[in-house]
Amino acid sequence: MRAAYVERPGPATDIKYGELPDPECRPGEVAVRVAAVAVNHVDTFVRSGAYATPVPMPLVLGRDLVGKPVGGDRWVWCNSLGHDGRQGASAELACVPADRLYPLPDGVDPIAAVAVLHPAATAYTGLIHHARLRPGETLFVEGGNGAVGSCLIRLATGLGARVIASARGPAKAETCRSYGAHTVIDTNATDLREALGDLVPDGVDVYCDTTGRTPPAEAVPALATRGRALVLAGLAAGHPSPLDTSALYTHDRSVIGFAISLATADELAEAAEWINAELSGGRLRLDTQEMDLSRAAEAHETLESGSHKGRRLILRVTRG
Amino acid sequence: MRAAYVERPGPATDIKYGELPDPECRPGEVAVRVAAVAVNHVDTFVRSGAYATPVPMPLVLGRDLVGKPVGGDRWVWCNSLGHDGRQGASAELACVPADRLYPLPDGVDPIAAVAVLHPAATAYTGLIHHARLRPGETLFVEGGNGAVGSCLIRLATGLGARVIASARGPAKAETCRSYGAHTVIDTNATDLREALGDLVPDGVDVYCDTTGRTPPAEAVPALATRGRALVLAGLAAGHPSPLDTSALYTHDRSVIGFAISLATADELAEAAEWINAELSGGRLRLDTQEMDLSRAAEAHETLESGSHKGRRLILRVTRG
Repeated sequence: MRAAYVERPGPATDIKYGELPDPECRPGEVAVRVAAVAVNHVDTFVRSGAYATPVPMPLVLGRDLVGKPVGGDRWVWCNSLGHDGRQGASAELACVPADRLYPLPDGVDPIAAVAVLHPAATAYTGLIHHARLRPGETLFVEGGNGAVGSCLIRLATGLGARVIASARGPAKAETCRSYGAHTVIDTNATDLREALGDLVPDGVDVYCDTTGRTPPAEAVPALATRGRALVLAGLAAGHPSPLDTSALYTHDRSVIGFAISLATADELAEAAEWINAELSGGRLRLDTQEMDLSRAAEAHETLESGSHKGRRLILRVTRG
Repeated sequence: MRAAYVERPGPATDIKYGELPDPECRPGEVAVRVAAVAVNHVDTFVRSGAYATPVPMPLVLGRDLVGKPVGGDRWVWCNSLGHDGRQGASAELACVPADRLYPLPDGVDPIAAVAVLHPAATAYTGLIHHARLRPGETLFVEGGNGAVGSCLIRLATGLGARVIASARGPAKAETCRSYGAHTVIDTNATDLREALGDLVPDGVDVYCDTTGRTPPAEAVPALATRGRALVLAGLAAGHPSPLDTSALYTHDRSVIGFAISLATADELAEAAEWINAELSGGRLRLDTQEMDLSRAAEAHETLESGSHKGRRLILRVTRG
């Protein structure tokens, strides 16, 4: 089978494209003929070794795929390959554990779908399983125009929460509004802390910085009593920042870190139910840039350099 | 009625002991003839103004009482007076909201009971409502010999968790063992971090520092995947400490602050069920030092100077 893979952790330029033996699926796995995969930041971390997780070598890169079971005709998808012992997605054939394989709802475009799987699952498990956002609460999303930010906004507004987002400049602010944000702070025009304090003097219930630029210690004072700062990014910079103990405990506040890579199969299956409902309703849509699987190395370089300009990078495995 | 009270926030020496008008209970409140009250650190914070909470003035000090309803003969208790708009406990009569008043089980010594109400409720709401400790998980209690530490150990072992505690010196270590700790680290003899790492290489599920001396940033690396650092102290020092974002989110770890003062009436009532079961079984016992209500100022000074030596200070309101 054709595959995009690495033989050891290393830079994007080490990604190989070529033939690998067809995988042999184990009991409980389903052989899937892959149509397209997404390229995520976390895929570059696994590739480089920055995210240490057991994987086979050679490692087929990537976690998200859409395709059809070998011998079947219904579209399916998976978003948890390529880490924690599992081989990856970027190949013509992939073995997917049956409990990590979900049907794609009828009528949904597979390419549009594969683009949202990772950020949507991240949003779901972050807001629902970790931050436990509830209807009527207020969510603030810093960087609401990004892929995860957009999904957070969609999920929270659908749940009946009040959503405030921030973005840089009017165009990105408009993106946040298009996903349903009730209020958007343009941080090119306004001081974020001041604007947020004016909008929600008692603090927000959940504060999620999708950019990884705001240390939790800065988010904590913006929280309401029992508020949660949801931390999902910041690997590259580390962001050590002085956290004031009393600001936390005297207000029942929490700082909650999570990584979608640690979600259980059950949690991912629950997220998949929501994702499929949103896909069916045509509500989850992200800008994409499509490339052929043979350009996997270029896709990783593009993502690492930031030149994807917020578009989701999709590798087509079969000719569309 | 005789009462120990202050007319404004200030030092312990400003505590007055003398006559105040009998309180007039509002609908939904029960008039209680108070037998004894406990003196907690948080009572000194409310008195000094360090903990800002709306209270009437003059403020009768204290939150915990045992007594009998006026005209009744069954013992009752409360542990949430004296803050958040409610008048305090240190007087011959107190008005207690009915949903904050619980029966004392038959045969339980009221003085021994009043000593455990606050630390036991703190342990319950912290471990159950906030850290969500589950059977089979591992809890580490730093300062396990203190009042809250002892109650944390009792609760967690009763729940079926594995409990490791630390204390300074063999006598305090023995106290931890007497409450049921499975393993105790004597920090006078051993390096805490090293010993804990040897005992639980994969980290603990819940880390609770009862001393307020360990910054959350130091507790986080000792946590397992999905581990929670439970923060309940540190007001005096503040303890800003650099928190590494990636250490949090790459392992689904959380830092969870909570203050028993923010517990809802429902949460406290749930804690009361556990406390009463423990009291009935004779399992919750703390060393006490009893004084007359007239010595309330001395009790506050004793607690603030640390010369209570870990004993719970109890003020007798009626002659025993």
